[in-house]
Amino acid sequence: MDIIENLKKVRKQKPLIHHITNWVTIYDCANVVRVTGGLPVMAHAPEEVEQMTSISGALVLNIGTLTVDLVKSMILAGRKANEKNIPVILDIVGAGATDLRTGKANEILDSVNVSILKGNSSEIGTIAGARAETKGVEAISVEGDLTEIAKKLAREKNLTVVITGREDIISNGRDIYTCKNGHPMMGSFVGSGCIVSSVIGTFTAVEKDYALSSANALCFFGIAGEIAARTAKGPYSYKVILMDEIFNIDENKIRKMTRLVKIE
Amino acid sequence: MDIIENLKKVRKQKPLIHHITNWVTIYDCANVVRVTGGLPVMAHAPEEVEQMTSISGALVLNIGTLTVDLVKSMILAGRKANEKNIPVILDIVGAGATDLRTGKANEILDSVNVSILKGNSSEIGTIAGARAETKGVEAISVEGDLTEIAKKLAREKNLTVVITGREDIISNGRDIYTCKNGHPMMGSFVGSGCIVSSVIGTFTAVEKDYALSSANALCFFGIAGEIAARTAKGPYSYKVILMDEIFNIDENKIRKMTRLVKIE
Amino acid sequence: MDIIENLKKVRKQKPLIHHITNWVTIYDCANVVRVTGGLPVMAHAPEEVEQMTSISGALVLNIGTLTVDLVKSMILAGRKANEKNIPVILDIVGAGATDLRTGKANEILDSVNVSILKGNSSEIGTIAGARAETKGVEAISVEGDLTEIAKKLAREKNLTVVITGREDIISNGRDIYTCKNGHPMMGSFVGSGCIVSSVIGTFTAVEKDYALSSANALCFFGIAGEIAARTAKGPYSYKVILMDEIFNIDENKIRKMTRLVKIE
Repeated sequence: MDIIENLKKVRKQKPLIHHITNWVTIYDCANVVRVTGGLPVMAHAPEEVEQMTSISGALVLNIGTLTVDLVKSMILAGRKANEKNIPVILDIVGAGATDLRTGKANEILDSVNVSILKGNSSEIGTIAGARAETKGVEAISVEGDLTEIAKKLAREKNLTVVITGREDIISNGRDIYTCKNGHPMMGSFVGSGCIVSSVIGTFTAVEKDYALSSANALCFFGIAGEIAARTAKGPYSYKVILMDEIFNIDENKIRKMTRLVKIE
Repeated sequence: MDIIENLKKVRKQKPLIHHITNWVTIYDCANVVRVTGGLPVMAHAPEEVEQMTSISGALVLNIGTLTVDLVKSMILAGRKANEKNIPVILDIVGAGATDLRTGKANEILDSVNVSILKGNSSEIGTIAGARAETKGVEAISVEGDLTEIAKKLAREKNLTVVITGREDIISNGRDIYTCKNGHPMMGSFVGSGCIVSSVIGTFTAVEKDYALSSANALCFFGIAGEIAARTAKGPYSYKVILMDEIFNIDENKIRKMTRLVKIE
Repeated sequence: MDIIENLKKVRKQKPLIHHITNWVTIYDCANVVRVTGGLPVMAHAPEEVEQMTSISGALVLNIGTLTVDLVKSMILAGRKANEKNIPVILDIVGAGATDLRTGKANEILDSVNVSILKGNSSEIGTIAGARAETKGVEAISVEGDLTEIAKKLAREKNLTVVITGREDIISNGRDIYTCKNGHPMMGSFVGSGCIVSSVIGTFTAVEKDYALSSANALCFFGIAGEIAARTAKGPYSYKVILMDEIFNIDENKIRKMTRLVKIE
């Protein structure tokens, strides 16, 4: 299923994407689902997360402003998703920056069958046991070859690994994709990493090959980001144009601009 | 009191509108009060909600990302509002989607004299005991005539019911208004439902006839939404223009464009 | 160190600015750090705030949507900042409006060596013991000369006081600065007060003279606000342009437009 088919299926099925996420980018995460074509819902009370997940097409977990209680809700929702065979996307924002973040990322991975583990290079590096430095929520450095890290971690944990960066790397331990779409302006505002996890969740709700759906989502978002950069005047107008562009995106642009490569 | 008079009174008195709301649309809810002409305040700690409500002109409750503790604060604030004769607006986001949401909506209604109960068709239908389906926070279906549901529920609960949709329906059990202002682009981004509850709160803080103030607020917001649609390029530029337009709105536009009908 | 030098140092060092803040303006607070040139991080779990502060260049505390637990995290982080000699900025949003806000502002001041205490006239007046009225988060009135209040409170508490308003006043008890940059449109949307505290935190992370870094930050933000007002059509387009402008701001504009005066 290529990007266009994946997008069309989203717009036809309008999957509900349940988020337990952070308080910084929660609004944009909800909206990016909407403009892509799905229906977002944000719900974190332990009393309702299982029921909300049960009626959803995907579950997106994000530890950007985690608390111990919030992670408990994530695990409850994640286990219900496993039971119902609903894909779980985990964005490990800030793993490596504090022991709480690293520890809770690992606790979720130990407690839930995560479908897609997503982070920047130092966040994924931290989980993979590589020497890595995360400053707040920013990747500073990581030792080792990212493609190898992704592939090995994917095999070990039996999931799809997504490493975002100038070039995104996606691996399920067997297939490896790279996506070169995107633009430096995507890093000029806060939250493009969180937002793309929501796009991944939306594409994944309608496509069983999670490495492929992730690669499709990353390229789709990156293409919109390239188009937005043509007319934006700064980070905030950029985000406005980016979200409008996702809503309006046409197939021809996607066809011409996609830089998705299956390298293995 | 017509829309223009109601708006002028808001801009003269600058009522404080206390919100206990959700973490997704909290920013836009605060801002829509400001651009309409009131002063927003968001405060949810149980230790301060009563005191904050006491100095406010209206209280807006919204269960969009509810927790059990947050609802406790809502009830504390609501009871204080009742004691002080301050109107209470309750937006039952997602009622019907989970038992927690339906149950807590009913608990608030049982504990507080709510002035205006607001939701989309399936949320209100759920509370009215109709067969209804809510997908996340989206109305999917409801059985029965919405005008009848609104009128009957308003009588039963002794409050004003607002059902938002392509055509908004407002009833206090005696009067019935419909507002046909609005534009499909209002549903292209997340939160127009939450935002309009804050506009209702702002209009209601200065007008004792709650059905009328609600109808005025809905048409006012809908008119701005129609104007914004003329120049927007997508959902995010739409919201920017919409909020600017509310700030700048002139009386002539309101006069010409209002589609408010008192049908009973 | 003048504004331009201060800004250049921010952009070179990219300090991490740890926030424990409110849920209304958290997104814009994070972004303003980014567009100014720093790295924002928002983290409030008591288990991680000390570690996050330890790797940061400044700590920004904001009581806009405080809870008792959130203030506990603020005090933990603040004490760690003191231990590590990292500047602490405290924005006392709504002090005077409720006993909780006034009480918790004082509790933080008693528990942590705050470097910069920032508020509007009635918030600072409340802490200084002047007769003052705060309506929600809005300054209504305060008795006494603001420059004297700032200077005296700064001496008493051994910190820098920032009073924002049409003219900003900054004093460390010895030096007094005023900044006349800014534009009325900065008050047309919610959160310019919170945002400027994050800019102060960012400038202060790289400049040891906190009164000067605060004055630099206020003028820098005010200049961007003046430029944005030239082309904005309303509050939301204003904010978009303002944030873009901070990202793009050039030295010549700063040089020509600065209205920073050291009055003592």
